[in-house]
Amino acid sequence: MQLPQRVTIKEVGPRDGLQNETAVMPTQTKIALVDKLSATGLKYIEVSSFVNPKWIPALGDATDVFSAITRRPGVQYSALVPNTRGLESALAAQVDAVNVFMSASESHNLKNINKSIADTFPVLKAVVEQAKAVGLPVRGYVSTVFGCPYEGPVTLDNVKRVATALLDMGVDELSLGDTIGVAVPKQVVEVVGELAKEMPLEKLALHFHDTRGMAIANIWAGLNAGITVFDASVGGLGGCPYAPGASGNVATEDTLYLFHRMGVETDVDEGAVLATVAWLEEAIGRTVNSHARAVVRGAKS
Amino acid sequence: MQLPQRVTIKEVGPRDGLQNETAVMPTQTKIALVDKLSATGLKYIEVSSFVNPKWIPALGDATDVFSAITRRPGVQYSALVPNTRGLESALAAQVDAVNVFMSASESHNLKNINKSIADTFPVLKAVVEQAKAVGLPVRGYVSTVFGCPYEGPVTLDNVKRVATALLDMGVDELSLGDTIGVAVPKQVVEVVGELAKEMPLEKLALHFHDTRGMAIANIWAGLNAGITVFDASVGGLGGCPYAPGASGNVATEDTLYLFHRMGVETDVDEGAVLATVAWLEEAIGRTVNSHARAVVRGAKS
Repeated sequence: MQLPQRVTIKEVGPRDGLQNETAVMPTQTKIALVDKLSATGLKYIEVSSFVNPKWIPALGDATDVFSAITRRPGVQYSALVPNTRGLESALAAQVDAVNVFMSASESHNLKNINKSIADTFPVLKAVVEQAKAVGLPVRGYVSTVFGCPYEGPVTLDNVKRVATALLDMGVDELSLGDTIGVAVPKQVVEVVGELAKEMPLEKLALHFHDTRGMAIANIWAGLNAGITVFDASVGGLGGCPYAPGASGNVATEDTLYLFHRMGVETDVDEGAVLATVAWLEEAIGRTVNSHARAVVRGAKS
Repeated sequence: MQLPQRVTIKEVGPRDGLQNETAVMPTQTKIALVDKLSATGLKYIEVSSFVNPKWIPALGDATDVFSAITRRPGVQYSALVPNTRGLESALAAQVDAVNVFMSASESHNLKNINKSIADTFPVLKAVVEQAKAVGLPVRGYVSTVFGCPYEGPVTLDNVKRVATALLDMGVDELSLGDTIGVAVPKQVVEVVGELAKEMPLEKLALHFHDTRGMAIANIWAGLNAGITVFDASVGGLGGCPYAPGASGNVATEDTLYLFHRMGVETDVDEGAVLATVAWLEEAIGRTVNSHARAVVRGAKS
């Protein structure tokens, strides 16, 4: 068993997490959250989204958040960008990296972006070209890679089609998302193995939701398949829009436990993240459902 | 990746789960729970414990439970037995299988059994011999295999010493327990790999607690290491005595999701287990914290 010495955790809590929370977090709290995360050793924080606030009202303050966070050297502050209009705002807000997104399944893409997959490609291509032209790295989220809430199973051909198109546009990294948290480790091994035949493994990241409690197992499977970049959300922020009350993104602190306990470095300070989660619970007025946080709470009770 | 076609889930909720719940479940509810579990396809149910009620008051009604459950042909109804006095009661209650237990770490064994490891061996040996003499299978739980709440790391030599001693006594199967839920998949691969050098893999089962959210990943790692018997607890019953509020045993329904979604058979009806969990929540007056149950609740809300 040959594990990598080091992996990268990409923090998506302030964007993917908060986007799916029922309560909207005040702008000042978001700023404080990003600043606290900046001090943990995380090298990548997805701060917000420049999607039209009509669609994601919870992140309508993206410009304000970007203008007020304290940027730590060496940390990339990224944002979700749907089109060139969003890119314009993102550039004005001085993002360090741009994230485009689409789905591997036609129905989810249609529901989420209001366009067919074919019609989404040129929109994203324009964003990628303009972002690259000003020297920004671009990440591409592919949703519903492991299953679609409307179609069920998603074929590998559909995943490959979208993944290849994004890479051909010049996207630097693909984040393969288990949007509804249905993936199992065997599937992760298969999907990564098949994609690796057609694209460099170094360009692939994995993004798991813990809806069915499989996220950590899927990360372990992905690690063994050669993946070294994993998305996670502080406190496991973000629920599942298809099953209210179910778990959302895999928690950053649980992911850190997995890696650190196996001797795999992340350069992230687990204690600092746990302290941020404790603060976060106070800030949002409820307990989060990460395991690592429950252990700390329990030990103190 | 060669997965087995079929694995065995051993249900430990009525014993290990209820033993660690704060509220004591009424005897009639326990009986109903075992009867419902019997109808799900589970072939092994650990019903209760014949440890002195002074130590485990929550299971002091073991005899009453055994006398009232409806025994389904093909299902093994087992109980925890600490010594020959407990075995006497267990035999009177007509258990189908006997489970002895001890720890791989000296301090946990001392705290839990009030004896040194060396002094525990003859006590268990007497139980095993008498149980085998009347034709009953014996399972041996080894606690703290992956970490001890008092000593921290537990050496493989200590695990091997206890495991070998139990097998030498005639124990048919060892259940290797991650009592405090600290194990990570890399460790599971290592521990199973090392033990397999000295004992048949078919005699090993794995018993994970989900305290830190690693249980499903550990089961997947164990499966890949050749293990085909896994303990689980309906509804994830049972907390962690060392961190109140943290998760307990891995939930049967989450474990079933893992296996079934990967095409590994268990002969257990996932829907019947989920229906039992829904009933269980009514019976205990609180929600359980399994992921599969949260998804069902969310989908209905």
